[in-house]
Amino acid sequence: MASNENVEVTFEPISKRVLVNAGTTVLQAANEAGISLTTECGGKGTCGKCRVIVGKPECLSELTDSERRHLSTFEVSQGYRLACQAKVLRSTTIMLPAESHLGTRRFQATGLERVLTPKPAVKKVHVKMSKPTLSDIRPDYERLVDALPPIYQQAEVAHEVLKEIPTIIRQSNFDVTATIWSGRRIISVESGDTSEKVFGLAVDIGTSKIVCHLVDLVNGKTLDIESAENPQLVYGEDIISRITFATADPKNLETLQKALVNVINKIVGKICRRQGIERGQIYEAVVVGNTAMHHLFLGIQPKYVALSPFTPAVKKQLNVEASKLKIRIKPSGIVTILPVIAGFVGADAVADALASGICDSEDVSMLIDVGTNTEVLVGNSQDVIACSCASGPAFEGFHIRHGVKAVEGAIEKVRIREDFEVEYETIGGKKPIGLCGSAMIDLVAEMFKRGLIDSGGRINLNMKTERLRKRNGEIEFVVAWGGETKTGRDITITQGDIREVQLAKAAIYAACSILMEKKGLKEDDFDRVFVAGAFGNYLNLENAKVLGLIPDIPLEKIEFIGNAAITGAKMALISVEAREKADEISRKTRYVELAADQNFNKEFIDATLIPHKNLNKFPSVKRLLKGG
Amino acid sequence: MASNENVEVTFEPISKRVLVNAGTTVLQAANEAGISLTTECGGKGTCGKCRVIVGKPECLSELTDSERRHLSTFEVSQGYRLACQAKVLRSTTIMLPAESHLGTRRFQATGLERVLTPKPAVKKVHVKMSKPTLSDIRPDYERLVDALPPIYQQAEVAHEVLKEIPTIIRQSNFDVTATIWSGRRIISVESGDTSEKVFGLAVDIGTSKIVCHLVDLVNGKTLDIESAENPQLVYGEDIISRITFATADPKNLETLQKALVNVINKIVGKICRRQGIERGQIYEAVVVGNTAMHHLFLGIQPKYVALSPFTPAVKKQLNVEASKLKIRIKPSGIVTILPVIAGFVGADAVADALASGICDSEDVSMLIDVGTNTEVLVGNSQDVIACSCASGPAFEGFHIRHGVKAVEGAIEKVRIREDFEVEYETIGGKKPIGLCGSAMIDLVAEMFKRGLIDSGGRINLNMKTERLRKRNGEIEFVVAWGGETKTGRDITITQGDIREVQLAKAAIYAACSILMEKKGLKEDDFDRVFVAGAFGNYLNLENAKVLGLIPDIPLEKIEFIGNAAITGAKMALISVEAREKADEISRKTRYVELAADQNFNKEFIDATLIPHKNLNKFPSVKRLLKGG
Repeated sequence: MASNENVEVTFEPISKRVLVNAGTTVLQAANEAGISLTTECGGKGTCGKCRVIVGKPECLSELTDSERRHLSTFEVSQGYRLACQAKVLRSTTIMLPAESHLGTRRFQATGLERVLTPKPAVKKVHVKMSKPTLSDIRPDYERLVDALPPIYQQAEVAHEVLKEIPTIIRQSNFDVTATIWSGRRIISVESGDTSEKVFGLAVDIGTSKIVCHLVDLVNGKTLDIESAENPQLVYGEDIISRITFATADPKNLETLQKALVNVINKIVGKICRRQGIERGQIYEAVVVGNTAMHHLFLGIQPKYVALSPFTPAVKKQLNVEASKLKIRIKPSGIVTILPVIAGFVGADAVADALASGICDSEDVSMLIDVGTNTEVLVGNSQDVIACSCASGPAFEGFHIRHGVKAVEGAIEKVRIREDFEVEYETIGGKKPIGLCGSAMIDLVAEMFKRGLIDSGGRINLNMKTERLRKRNGEIEFVVAWGGETKTGRDITITQGDIREVQLAKAAIYAACSILMEKKGLKEDDFDRVFVAGAFGNYLNLENAKVLGLIPDIPLEKIEFIGNAAITGAKMALISVEAREKADEISRKTRYVELAADQNFNKEFIDATLIPHKNLNKFPSVKRLLKGG
Repeated sequence: MASNENVEVTFEPISKRVLVNAGTTVLQAANEAGISLTTECGGKGTCGKCRVIVGKPECLSELTDSERRHLSTFEVSQGYRLACQAKVLRSTTIMLPAESHLGTRRFQATGLERVLTPKPAVKKVHVKMSKPTLSDIRPDYERLVDALPPIYQQAEVAHEVLKEIPTIIRQSNFDVTATIWSGRRIISVESGDTSEKVFGLAVDIGTSKIVCHLVDLVNGKTLDIESAENPQLVYGEDIISRITFATADPKNLETLQKALVNVINKIVGKICRRQGIERGQIYEAVVVGNTAMHHLFLGIQPKYVALSPFTPAVKKQLNVEASKLKIRIKPSGIVTILPVIAGFVGADAVADALASGICDSEDVSMLIDVGTNTEVLVGNSQDVIACSCASGPAFEGFHIRHGVKAVEGAIEKVRIREDFEVEYETIGGKKPIGLCGSAMIDLVAEMFKRGLIDSGGRINLNMKTERLRKRNGEIEFVVAWGGETKTGRDITITQGDIREVQLAKAAIYAACSILMEKKGLKEDDFDRVFVAGAFGNYLNLENAKVLGLIPDIPLEKIEFIGNAAITGAKMALISVEAREKADEISRKTRYVELAADQNFNKEFIDATLIPHKNLNKFPSVKRLLKGG
C-alpha cells in the first residue's frame, strides 16, 4: 500500500476527524488530531496503556508481539489494540476507552492563597504632555520621560515601544499611559488612560502539566486559571528521558522548547478570549518549574543537569523579553523566571518555599513537594537546607497497573472496611477508571492497617476475601469490580504496584530523614510540615504517615498545600518583594546532594518497610496498630 | 506583447546581464542587475539624468514626451534614451555612459584622525574556572561570573549567550573568554583565549552614502574601510522625499529600514572576508547619521521630523541589540546610535562636534558640515549653538546640468585663467564626465573673480570668450570641450547652475551669520573654523570665501576636515569617554530654529550676492578684487 495515500481516522466518542498518510500509527493520528492518549513509554509498545478499540480490524495493520503481550485474547476479540502499535491502513473509526483518553484532566491548578499587597514589577503611569511648539521642540521620547515621575526618568525604552511613540502620542493628543517594568524599562506606551488594565501571568511548568493563572496586577486578584498537559510528554515521561532526547540532537532541544512555548501561548489565547482582554495587556509573566523544565523553557541544554555533579546552567533569576522567548504576551513585556537552587531543586521549590513562608518564619518547618522528583526543604528563617530525590511517578499514576492521573473518574480516596469491603470516591463522582496518587497512598496504608499486607509490603493471601487473588502469576487486590467501573474491567492494586509505592515513599522519607539529621532535628522540633504536590484536591495525611511517606509529626502541624509552586509564582508576580525573597531563598538555601550522602542508602532501605524498619520512629502509627 | 515574457538585458561596458519581464523600464532592469544609475527624480522622467544608449532602438518602447524634452535630436539619433522612460521589449544590450553610471564612486570615507587611548565599551576577559564537583556544584553561569573581575559580577547576560554557556565551557575545558559590554552585559562567551580578537564597526549613514570603518578595539586602529551608495536613493534623492515615501505606507518605512540594514550587512560581509574575521567577532557598532537617517535606520516613523516644529522621536543615545536591528555582527552585540540634537541636527553633527573637539576647547569655533542639509555649530566648551539649513544638493552634483557626485572623472578643481581658459583636475585623473561640488564652488568663485559673472551671479555676455554662449535659450560657460571629455559632450555651467549655487551658499552663510549674531560673535572672534562635507578630498577654502559660502575668517584658521561624522563615530566606538562626550554634546548644544528666526530671510537674501550684499563683511575678498 502506497504510504502517501491519505486515510481518514475518526475518533469517538469525541467525533474528531483527521487525515493522515496510510501507515501512520493510531497514536500519531491521535496526536495530529490534538488528542492526548495515555502513554508512559512514549509509544515504544512497552507500557500497554494506549488501548483503543477498532470496529473494523481489517482497517489496521496486523497485531504486533507487543500487543499480544499486553492484550488478552478476549480483549483482542473485542477490537482492542495498542494505539502506538496499530497502523491505519484504511479510513476507519477508532473508539477511545475512558482509561486511555486523558479527557478533561483535573490538575492541581490552585494552591493555598496568600494575601499580598500588590507591588508588581509592572507599573502604569498615565501622563498628559504639552504639545511640541517651535519654542518647545523636545523630542517625543524625552517629552514623555519628562512627564513621568522622576524615579522613572532614567528608564530605558524597549526598541519596539520607541518605534511606536511618535504615532501614539499624536493619535492620543499627547495623553498616554506608559508601562514601566521594574522602574527601569518602558515596555509599553498606550493611547489614553489605560492604567486600570494591567495583567500578569503566573506559569508553573510541571513535568507533566502546565498551569497558568491570569492575575489583575492592580488588585492582585486571580482572574482565570487554565492548565494543559505538558506537551513534552510524548518525548518521554520523566525528566531524564526528556533530557536524553534533548541531548541527542540540537533540534530536539528546540522541539521541546517550542512545545512548551506553544502550549503556553494557547493557554494565554484561551484565557484572553474568556476574559475579553488582549494578549498585549499582559505585561509580565513569572515562570517556575523544576530545573530541567526551567532549562528547556529557556532553550538551555539541560544535559549537565542530568550528569554528576548535576550542575544547572544558571541559578539566578532571569528576566527575558517575551519576544525573545516567543511567549505571546506584550512582545516587549518581560518573562521573569524565578531562580533555582540546584540541578534537582528548581524554581518550583523556590516558589514552594515562598508560598509556605518557611524561610520567613522563626518556626522550624519541613516542606515536601511530592512528584516524580520530590523536593524536601527543612529549616527556618535562620537557615534552610534542601534536597531532591527520585521518587518515581507512582503517585502520578505511572508504573501502576491501573494507575491514572488525577482525571475525572480517577479513584482519589479509598477506605478498606474491617470486612475488607472497599469504599472509594472518584474525581467528579464518575464511574472509576483507575487509581490516582492519593488512592495509592490510601490503599497501601489501608491494606497495611487491615493486615492485607505486612510491613514488608507482602500481600497476605491467607486473609479471607475474594478481593485477593492471583492473576497471570501476580497477586493483586481488587479495588473495584468490573461491574462498577467505566471500562468494565476490574481495577486492582498488584503486588508490583505496592512495591512501586514502597520505593517511592522510601526515597521521600529517606530524604526527609537525612535533612533532619543534617539539621539535628527530631520530629518534635517541627512547628509545621507542608506537603505539596499533584494529588488532586485530596491527600489523607494520616494515611501518608501510616505509609511512612512523611515523618511522624502530629497531624495538626501538617498542612496539604496542593500546587504551592503556582502560588509562589503568583506571589512573585504580584510583589517585587516576594521576587527579592525568591532570590534570597535561591541564594541562601543550602543544597544537600543525597548522592554524596553515605547514610542515604541505609535510610532508604530501612524506609522501604511500612511505616519504617524502626517502628519507634512512628509512635502514632505504633499506637494505631496496637489499638486496631 | 505579453508582459510576463522574459527578456535579457545586457549592460555594457560592465557586461552585467539580467532577465526581466518584457515591458520593464531600463532603470528597473538596471536596479535588478545591481547597477546604480544617476537619477535625481527617482524615475519620474523630470531630471533627464538617467541617459543610456541603445544599439537597437527597436528593442525599446517608443520615445516619450519626457525624452523628447531632455534629449536633442542628435542624441536620439545616437541611440540616447532615458532609462526611466524606455521599456525593454526585446532582449538587447544597453550602454551605460560614464555620466549616468555611478561607477566606482569615490566617497569621502575618511576624515581627520584623532588619536585616542582605546577604552571601548566592549571588553574581553579570559578566565579559567575550576570544574564542578559534588562539593562545588555552582551553576555554570555563576561559576563563570565568580571567575570574572568583581566589577563585572553584576552584569546581565544576553539570553543567546546564556544558552551556549554549558556547552562552551565544557568544550573548552573551563577556559573561556567572556565579552562584556559597558561593564553590565555579557554578550559573548567563547572557547579559549580570544582576547586579542575584538572588532568594532563605525557606520556613517549619509543621505546619499554609507561609510563603514572596521576598527581593532584592542589598539584602536582602523583596519578596513568600505562604502556604498545609500540604497534609499531609489526612493527619493533628498530627505524630504524619503520621509514622504516612509509616511505613505507603514510598509515603506520597513522597506527603507531593510534597505539600509541590507547594505550595511553586505559591507560587513565584504570587510570580514577581506580581513579574514567572522561577523561574530564584531561586538559593537556605533552608528551616526542625520536625524531622518537615524530614525529610518531604527525603523522609527520620521514623519514628524519633517513637520513643524520638527521634533525627533528621540534624542538620547540608544543601545540596541544587533539581532533586533538585524545587523549581522555578533547577534547579542550592541548597536549604539549616537544621540541627535534636533530634527535637522542629527547624530552626524554630534559626531562632527566630537571629531572637531569644538565642545572641549576654550577656543571659539565654527563647524560647517555642508550637505543637502548643512549643519552649523558655533561656540566653545562653555556653550555651543547649532542650526541646520536646507542648502540643497547643488554641492553633491544634483540639480546642476552637468553635476555629478565625487566619482572618477568628476572635475574637482577648476581655475580660470585671465584669458578665460580653464584649467581643471578630475578625480582619478580620468577624462572629465561632469562637475562635482568643489568644482562648482571653484567655478562660481573663479568666474566672479574674472568678471564672467557679476556679484548678482549674472553671466556677463560681453566678456570676450567663445566659452560663453547661449544654448537652448540658456546662457552657459563651457568648462570642458567635447573633445576633452569622456562623453564627447561639452561640460558647461549654466546660468541656472550658478543660481543653484547662490541659493545653496546663501542658506549656509545665513545660517552661520544668524548663529554668530545669536552668540554676539564677529569674524575676528573665531579661533577655528572647521568645514566638513562630501567634497571628495579637495575643497578650495579661499574660493569658498570668495563665493561667500563661509564667513571671511583668515585662511590659517580654517580647516577642511572631510567626513568628520565617521571620525566622530569611530571615536565613540573606541572610547566610552567620547561616547559620554557625545551625550553631553547632544544635551548641552542649544538648537536654533532658523524657521523661527525673523532675520533669516533678510540674511538669506543679502547672502545670495557674491560674496555678499555688504562687501564689508568680506574684507579679504574686497582686497582680492581690488588687487585683481
